[in-house]
Amino acid sequence: MTRRYLATALLIGLGGPAQAQTAPQLPPPEKTDPAALQLMQGFPPPPDKTVTLGTVLRVPANARWANQHFRELGPTVAVWRGPGGPSALKSAPRDLDALAFEDDKAQRTTFADWQKSTYTDALLVMHKGAVVYERYDAGLRTNVPHVLWSMTKSFTGLLTALAIHEGKLDPKAKISQYLPELADSAWGDATLQQTLDMTTAVRYGEDITNPKAEIFQYLISNGLVPAPANYPGPRTMLAFLRSLPKDGEHGAGFAYKTVDTEILGWLLQRTSGKSFAELVSERIWRGIGAEEDAYVWVDSSGAQVTSIGLSATLRDLGRFGEMIRQGGEVNGKRVLPKEVIDEIRKGADREKFKASGLAPRFGYSYHNQWWISHDAAGSFEAKGLNGQHLHINPAAELVIVKLSSHPAGNTILTHNLDRRAFEAVAKAIGVKALAK
Amino acid sequence: MTRRYLATALLIGLGGPAQAQTAPQLPPPEKTDPAALQLMQGFPPPPDKTVTLGTVLRVPANARWANQHFRELGPTVAVWRGPGGPSALKSAPRDLDALAFEDDKAQRTTFADWQKSTYTDALLVMHKGAVVYERYDAGLRTNVPHVLWSMTKSFTGLLTALAIHEGKLDPKAKISQYLPELADSAWGDATLQQTLDMTTAVRYGEDITNPKAEIFQYLISNGLVPAPANYPGPRTMLAFLRSLPKDGEHGAGFAYKTVDTEILGWLLQRTSGKSFAELVSERIWRGIGAEEDAYVWVDSSGAQVTSIGLSATLRDLGRFGEMIRQGGEVNGKRVLPKEVIDEIRKGADREKFKASGLAPRFGYSYHNQWWISHDAAGSFEAKGLNGQHLHINPAAELVIVKLSSHPAGNTILTHNLDRRAFEAVAKAIGVKALAK
Repeated sequence: MTRRYLATALLIGLGGPAQAQTAPQLPPPEKTDPAALQLMQGFPPPPDKTVTLGTVLRVPANARWANQHFRELGPTVAVWRGPGGPSALKSAPRDLDALAFEDDKAQRTTFADWQKSTYTDALLVMHKGAVVYERYDAGLRTNVPHVLWSMTKSFTGLLTALAIHEGKLDPKAKISQYLPELADSAWGDATLQQTLDMTTAVRYGEDITNPKAEIFQYLISNGLVPAPANYPGPRTMLAFLRSLPKDGEHGAGFAYKTVDTEILGWLLQRTSGKSFAELVSERIWRGIGAEEDAYVWVDSSGAQVTSIGLSATLRDLGRFGEMIRQGGEVNGKRVLPKEVIDEIRKGADREKFKASGLAPRFGYSYHNQWWISHDAAGSFEAKGLNGQHLHINPAAELVIVKLSSHPAGNTILTHNLDRRAFEAVAKAIGVKALAK
Repeated sequence: MTRRYLATALLIGLGGPAQAQTAPQLPPPEKTDPAALQLMQGFPPPPDKTVTLGTVLRVPANARWANQHFRELGPTVAVWRGPGGPSALKSAPRDLDALAFEDDKAQRTTFADWQKSTYTDALLVMHKGAVVYERYDAGLRTNVPHVLWSMTKSFTGLLTALAIHEGKLDPKAKISQYLPELADSAWGDATLQQTLDMTTAVRYGEDITNPKAEIFQYLISNGLVPAPANYPGPRTMLAFLRSLPKDGEHGAGFAYKTVDTEILGWLLQRTSGKSFAELVSERIWRGIGAEEDAYVWVDSSGAQVTSIGLSATLRDLGRFGEMIRQGGEVNGKRVLPKEVIDEIRKGADREKFKASGLAPRFGYSYHNQWWISHDAAGSFEAKGLNGQHLHINPAAELVIVKLSSHPAGNTILTHNLDRRAFEAVAKAIGVKALAK
């Protein structure tokens, strides 16, 4: 049981305390490559090469397969790309594989080695809107959506901030004003902005070392972890969210909590009358000229998982990142109001962020579900489990998308390393370095 | 239990004996319209408006919602449309709604009324390759795939016939030559062609009035029907197929059996090394210039359901039908060899077909998983549960696609009525009538 919980935790944990942030024993990257291991090959594949939802959380290689095949494991809903055809992507290729840089342990590494050692499934570098570098590994292909895990949160935060900008939502309003059924839960007297910035006080643990942490109940409730036999807890996501009590004072400090985002998603859908997949399609996916449909994981009651449920292709994430970098425009066409992105980039209270214990990211803040570095380059990020990254460097006019299956899960473990790789790219293409 | 089985049977049954083909009590069409009933509206929808896989088979309205939302209820895999963008569809619209004709009970009806009374979700008429008529109902939209049920079989049959044409498969070979693990099953000494034409002798019933019919085990094995508590039967589709014994002599007569198609799908995937979704994508979907990805239902072990598992959009089915009508070409570009379609159109032994008991369709035969009418117009068809139709009339240069949610399930119940509607369209657009 402990072993299973630990494996689950490694996969999912994103915001545990600092003392838990030591790297566990990891399998070598090639031992997790589903293509090399021939997972799910053959009709039928041999039993020990068959990935089921119940095995994903125990076997890193199975997780790596699942990260690009989640729709084959359970219910999902399409995020339609719209009728317009994909927007053009300029190309200005550079061979960055041999690019050398010093890693966070003062060892020399290269751009290619960094990708391998961090279990990268796909990597995209865009400079001034043109694709400079694009690589796929582990069997991933251009047209296949990869799970975003908590990068999903930045979509939900963006849509919420957009609704605020449009006057449809009030950031100072209590959550229970929009969702009366949450009056008796932790969110009854939390404001929308506190939920957006994850400064709510909820008895909910995302601590990856605690087998009793509520994140496991969350994952069972939305179907991403199969319920054990005779499981007594909530079997739907909304029932689980309603069950969480307050614990402390809202607004006191930042605590990374996936459930805050699910509240936003629920509220967004309730107030707009549209599903999350419809909102992402109408307000973002069509606007950027996505090449492929994305998709969203759905729980057993049909609720869409708005905190960790999105899957999308590398190129479409590049288009998305580039739209954000351009302040809401794609090829001169406005998709989102510039003010919404300007507001995100302002960030939140960096002192309150320190309550998170995410030491490698001290200096950051978390605002409207985006990670704001407050560096001189103005870089800001969407992040997800297993090493999902959308890194935007406005000063360098750079967008980097990294889709990965790092078995250690928590991106904080590779934070300093990944930042060095991003900085090396910025230097290599001849732009200002990131401020350290 | 009986009631549940009956509902299931009504939804799924396709080839039961003639005496079972009387129409059951049916709900009025408007009482099954998920849009009008506001099924799955609201966040969350009220419990009595929530569709789950377990309720689909008991409630016709839920089935109607599910028919255009199956991916939201379980695992699926994408059939990629490819990178080329959709092929152009010419348009030559005509208002056919008021078109009057005499139904199979000698009552006057109209094209619009026929659609409503047969629970039509979408209808497309193409003449000489141009869209003459296109309608959507019950909330279905142009970009949303609708389940095809047994129309899936005609895709599997087409791919098998293609592999035979290319010399990769031998129609006279025994199934066990390709799938040795089936040596002790019903298919051990059945030939590929017998399986293609459903003249195998398998102890398997698709009889919709028999609660013990094996089709229910089949549906539980592939996950389309949730397993009852403590269900002792096979939990994967391949395990179920292996368990079926022989019952009689192969080749003696036609007996409609979904499981024959699953054997073809298994064999196709084993011998090609590609999944069904990959084969449909590479050999058909890309070739026709599909506008949207299709998708395939997947069982709990990852096996793709090749007999009833496809969902696709109305327009893409029009493109597919038109390619078949044109003998394998789309806009002058060859997609499939003409010989493969010519072979299908030859049909099989019409005397052996009568063993099926499908009296309204006597005169037909079933060859390579297509329904061949042997009428003067040379019409042939793909058919599926709930009234899915792809009707191709070569003489009239006509393709009709009908996607429906008829709660009586079996298309044989509306066979004569539907043929009259197709004939009325052929007459209305000024071409030769179908031979009766």
